[in-house]
Amino acid sequence: MYRFCLILIMAVLKCFSDYIQSYFLICAVFPGATSFLFTEYRYLTIFMGVFGAIIFLFLGSVKGFSTKSEPCTYNTGSLCKPALANALFSTIAFLLGATTSVLSGFLGMKIATYANARTTLEARKGVGKAFIVAFRSGAVMGFLLAASGLLVLYVSIHLFSLYYGDDWEGLYESITGYGLGGSSMALFGRVGGGIYTKAADVGADLVGKVERNIPEDDPRNPAVIADNVGDNVGDIAGMGSDLFGSYAESSCAALFVASISSFGISHDYTAMSYPLIISSVGIVVCLGTTLFATDFVEIKNVSEIEPSLKRQLVISTVLMTAGIAIVSFFALPSEFTLFNFGSTKTVKNWHLFFCVSIGLWAGLVIGYTTEYYTSNAYSPVQDVADSCRTGAATNVIFGLALGYKSVIIPIFAIAIAIYVSFSMAAMYGIAVAALGMLSTIATGLAIDAYGPISDNAGGIAEMAGMSHKIRQRTDALDAAGNTTAAIGKGFAIGSAALVSLALFGAFVSRAGIETVDVLTPKVFIGLIVGAMLPYWFSAMTMKSVGSAALKMVEEVRRQFNTIPGLMEGRAKPDYATCVKISTDASLREMIPPGALVMLTPLIAGTLFGVETLAGVLAGSLVSGVQVAISASNTGGAWDNAKKYIEAGASEHARSLGPKGSDPHKAAVIGDTIGDPLKDTSGPSLNILIKLMAVESLVFAPFFATHGGLLFKLL
Amino acid sequence: MYRFCLILIMAVLKCFSDYIQSYFLICAVFPGATSFLFTEYRYLTIFMGVFGAIIFLFLGSVKGFSTKSEPCTYNTGSLCKPALANALFSTIAFLLGATTSVLSGFLGMKIATYANARTTLEARKGVGKAFIVAFRSGAVMGFLLAASGLLVLYVSIHLFSLYYGDDWEGLYESITGYGLGGSSMALFGRVGGGIYTKAADVGADLVGKVERNIPEDDPRNPAVIADNVGDNVGDIAGMGSDLFGSYAESSCAALFVASISSFGISHDYTAMSYPLIISSVGIVVCLGTTLFATDFVEIKNVSEIEPSLKRQLVISTVLMTAGIAIVSFFALPSEFTLFNFGSTKTVKNWHLFFCVSIGLWAGLVIGYTTEYYTSNAYSPVQDVADSCRTGAATNVIFGLALGYKSVIIPIFAIAIAIYVSFSMAAMYGIAVAALGMLSTIATGLAIDAYGPISDNAGGIAEMAGMSHKIRQRTDALDAAGNTTAAIGKGFAIGSAALVSLALFGAFVSRAGIETVDVLTPKVFIGLIVGAMLPYWFSAMTMKSVGSAALKMVEEVRRQFNTIPGLMEGRAKPDYATCVKISTDASLREMIPPGALVMLTPLIAGTLFGVETLAGVLAGSLVSGVQVAISASNTGGAWDNAKKYIEAGASEHARSLGPKGSDPHKAAVIGDTIGDPLKDTSGPSLNILIKLMAVESLVFAPFFATHGGLLFKLL
Repeated sequence: MYRFCLILIMAVLKCFSDYIQSYFLICAVFPGATSFLFTEYRYLTIFMGVFGAIIFLFLGSVKGFSTKSEPCTYNTGSLCKPALANALFSTIAFLLGATTSVLSGFLGMKIATYANARTTLEARKGVGKAFIVAFRSGAVMGFLLAASGLLVLYVSIHLFSLYYGDDWEGLYESITGYGLGGSSMALFGRVGGGIYTKAADVGADLVGKVERNIPEDDPRNPAVIADNVGDNVGDIAGMGSDLFGSYAESSCAALFVASISSFGISHDYTAMSYPLIISSVGIVVCLGTTLFATDFVEIKNVSEIEPSLKRQLVISTVLMTAGIAIVSFFALPSEFTLFNFGSTKTVKNWHLFFCVSIGLWAGLVIGYTTEYYTSNAYSPVQDVADSCRTGAATNVIFGLALGYKSVIIPIFAIAIAIYVSFSMAAMYGIAVAALGMLSTIATGLAIDAYGPISDNAGGIAEMAGMSHKIRQRTDALDAAGNTTAAIGKGFAIGSAALVSLALFGAFVSRAGIETVDVLTPKVFIGLIVGAMLPYWFSAMTMKSVGSAALKMVEEVRRQFNTIPGLMEGRAKPDYATCVKISTDASLREMIPPGALVMLTPLIAGTLFGVETLAGVLAGSLVSGVQVAISASNTGGAWDNAKKYIEAGASEHARSLGPKGSDPHKAAVIGDTIGDPLKDTSGPSLNILIKLMAVESLVFAPFFATHGGLLFKLL
Repeated sequence: MYRFCLILIMAVLKCFSDYIQSYFLICAVFPGATSFLFTEYRYLTIFMGVFGAIIFLFLGSVKGFSTKSEPCTYNTGSLCKPALANALFSTIAFLLGATTSVLSGFLGMKIATYANARTTLEARKGVGKAFIVAFRSGAVMGFLLAASGLLVLYVSIHLFSLYYGDDWEGLYESITGYGLGGSSMALFGRVGGGIYTKAADVGADLVGKVERNIPEDDPRNPAVIADNVGDNVGDIAGMGSDLFGSYAESSCAALFVASISSFGISHDYTAMSYPLIISSVGIVVCLGTTLFATDFVEIKNVSEIEPSLKRQLVISTVLMTAGIAIVSFFALPSEFTLFNFGSTKTVKNWHLFFCVSIGLWAGLVIGYTTEYYTSNAYSPVQDVADSCRTGAATNVIFGLALGYKSVIIPIFAIAIAIYVSFSMAAMYGIAVAALGMLSTIATGLAIDAYGPISDNAGGIAEMAGMSHKIRQRTDALDAAGNTTAAIGKGFAIGSAALVSLALFGAFVSRAGIETVDVLTPKVFIGLIVGAMLPYWFSAMTMKSVGSAALKMVEEVRRQFNTIPGLMEGRAKPDYATCVKISTDASLREMIPPGALVMLTPLIAGTLFGVETLAGVLAGSLVSGVQVAISASNTGGAWDNAKKYIEAGASEHARSLGPKGSDPHKAAVIGDTIGDPLKDTSGPSLNILIKLMAVESLVFAPFFATHGGLLFKLL
């Protein structure tokens, strides 16, 4: 890394010999991010140890730690491995998932930090070159994540089967621990990273841009390093872990449901691996798709960037549909039976083709809706920008209304996908629909990671004092990245809804519940309390960002007031204190929301039993999706409304600008409010709904045996 | 009314002979409000006619408009009246409910507009006198509403029974139309009134307070009349209709469930009237309670107002608990059976005592929680005020977080109330728990209406140019009123949750559904789409307020810029144009959200059938409650954070002030954003969830017979 910094310094030295000092700044971002992540991972290792022990003890206690084999539940007549073995292998799978998730986030961050500076350098040659670097780096990250997730899962299944042999029930039950591990790390990554980045961002903006009127990413701002570190640990490492988690969970859900279907019992290995094959084909399809962005078509012009990124989504979706058809007709038996909460259901291979495809296409619809509501090329964001004319209050009112409205189409898309896939192949249909939506994950991640990479490239150009032209180019890359990042979040939320429904179904099967009837009080109170959890969780994360930002503001103000010559660029700010504020806040504040998510299923299941827990899961799912979509779109819209005014690309936009005008100031306030909504609360909520579901699934045997203590007492 | 204006003018003339012109302003508020309401009611009459016809046609078609008697559903072996009769009587009940609701709102508004001016006049004598007038006026309104609702219901039941005789199933089925009528008018009242008042308020504040730096309610502000008219039509008439609707619906739900229980079949009239007796006792208890505020204890000091109002809640709750005990042990048989979705359940009279009481006490818990989160005497609002130090953005972030957090305790209170009452007496338990929460409605309304009355009294003092001391007194009254208004909203939302669950249960019974299983795709898609509806609805209402406010701002700015001498008080503004903007906006914009709520059950039931509709109801209930509570508490907190800074009562508050300081400006922005949240979206959501449930209940026989067309086609 230091070698890279050196090369970077040498290269740029030739062009701008005045600003040597600034390059040290850039180099400060990489070790800053790494050092934060290592501190975070230290905490997470302790968590992994403790929670691994809980899994082992809880699951081991199901049959009183007996080492005797038990009759199988579904594959009647056969003997399955003892519960203690399942406890042990679930723990191992949990640790594997957690480690892979952490590794995915860390490697993604590494790739991104290298890519940032390279993109800035390429931007000197032109916008096309810079785009290719930024996009390819995103793609490398996407493929790395998808491939490592698949590989570790595949290898684990094979290693576990050395012990489990014919007992596929136990094997795939244990494998669900992999999803739990991946997702729990993602929670802390998203929440911790989100608090880190937004505390720094809000703090830097409020004093730098609003009070001191200095540009974004100006090296005189003491919070600038913390802000750039935050972009890497939050938007890249956090998001990488998040999507990896979705992916691991949907695979586990599909595998588990398949294992208790005829696939599992008749031991048809190809058919059983259908979810994994779909994902593998997805990687190949995405590989082909990236060529359309970087090789088949050349970007010459700023205005071609956004269409090119959007085209990626369409191309990968179309190609993938063909891929799904091939896999469905060749890998699957033409007809088979599934267990559907007590009854059985006959499913044909073309049913599954429709299930996977509808998930895939629903993802595209969600992506495009998100784009419509968050890109400043369309009227919704332009209306929000226009409302800045009358001040920040109307801007916020319009922005909130936009977020609420943007929920409508995605929810209908999800509802239709659920209805069709559920009707065709019960819970297995939902699980593969989720996999379908995630099958183009590599492309999704590529265009998603592209956003923060370009953002940081712009930051580096600013910090390095590069010419205005270069900054303009990186800004153009960044503007396209903002919309695609919002699309990525839309995908993440949509797939989270399907994944958690699939996990919910798997949980219900494993816990032996036959109906989850809203008309019973146990379920209904679960439902209403579950629907409340996203609010509780958001309250915690928003307040954390707010408090940390207040501290950051005070520190930045203090430095501007007490360090003589700072505003004139003659003195160096104390970056380290700001980094420390963000680090401390994020590590301290990620614990309460993390505890809320991790403990709720344990408490609900142990004290109130599986029915109430099922209610909690359903409630948090249907309510959390809405909060997540509206929060992330509101934030995205405010961000782009501000950019719309700043860019001044149309008559209307110019009438609101320029930078520093009253409407622009109102837009900056909206953007700041949107920061924690779109980068902390909103995206963490995906994980909330998925994680509670996968945790319930893993602990289902325990809850089914020992749960509902409180009701048993009454 | 004009006679009253004359007396008012004469009385005040003696004291402040300079400001004769201003009194015409005050008098302009009353006819303004009346004229708006008459225009609104003209539209509503058309709606009543059309929707009444729909009810008749839909319900009449259930048995093909046959006039033959049918075998009863529950009271097996007996003959019940034909479906056509039920259709006719449901329509009549609907029209009665609608008329009573409109009348309640209108009379409440009349009382309030008289009370406003009287309170201002009494404020000259002292704060205690003013308090008594404001509070008593609120109480008059509370008793009027509770009593008229009960009376019309009682008389209708008796008149209907002339035809129905022994057929209580048909009788109480028809009576549910009363709830639908009450609630549908409340929807339009709340939404229309809410848009009217907030468009005017936001518009007046943004230009007057923020841009021109003139005080609130200053007669130079062209939107001041519209603002004051709005307070009366929105906060008073709308809120009156709303709580009347809750009350009518919970009574109908309880009566309907009772009619299909053993009460109904064994025709025990006293027991059957249990819900009505509970409500009657509630009126007597509240009557006694008001004496504690106005006669037993004398208010001498501003600081005694809020405790006195809060004491009202505790006193009425304690007295009511005794009242419930007496009614339960004397009016009810010691044991009876209830139908519980196919099975029967034996219930004892003390079970019902607990059901009603737990609803009542849950209401108190919700009220106190709301107070904690919205009163500036406690740390949550003070933290929000403190965050204004760093600008509007942190204020909004903290305010949103506060709203989210304030959901937790009310939801647990509702969940516990639901669990206990459901376990003890199934859906009948929920219905009477809701009635319990609403049994102290007269007190709730009294302290709720007190708020806008004092607010307007302050406005009148300002417009009339009365002395600063008087304005201070009315401000003190108003500050206490703000918190109690928030408490009132908390009650309204909490009771709405219970009422709509009871209605949901009644709907399910009437539609003949035995389980509402989340694991079936039909129900699940209903659930997730239902959970989305509050967002769609809020998006519409927020956007309506925003757009109308934009227009208002432009008009007010135009007048300030083009009317010479307006700022100096030499020229009169054109109030009428502002009134017209609010009127037009509210009448036009109340249609889409109204249509969303009224059409959703019809479309879902007709196309997708009763299971999906049940999912929609459950989803909108569990999600809507959260949105409503968080929206109204966030708005209340911002309002009081601003007032906290303005009042400067503590060292901390003074460090943020005075009026016009940067933190104060940030607080004003928060307050403005909160306006549509707390006075338009939030309170309308109660009605959304109740109204969809009662509409489904009324149309249940139609949906059960002809519903689910789309699934039948597939």
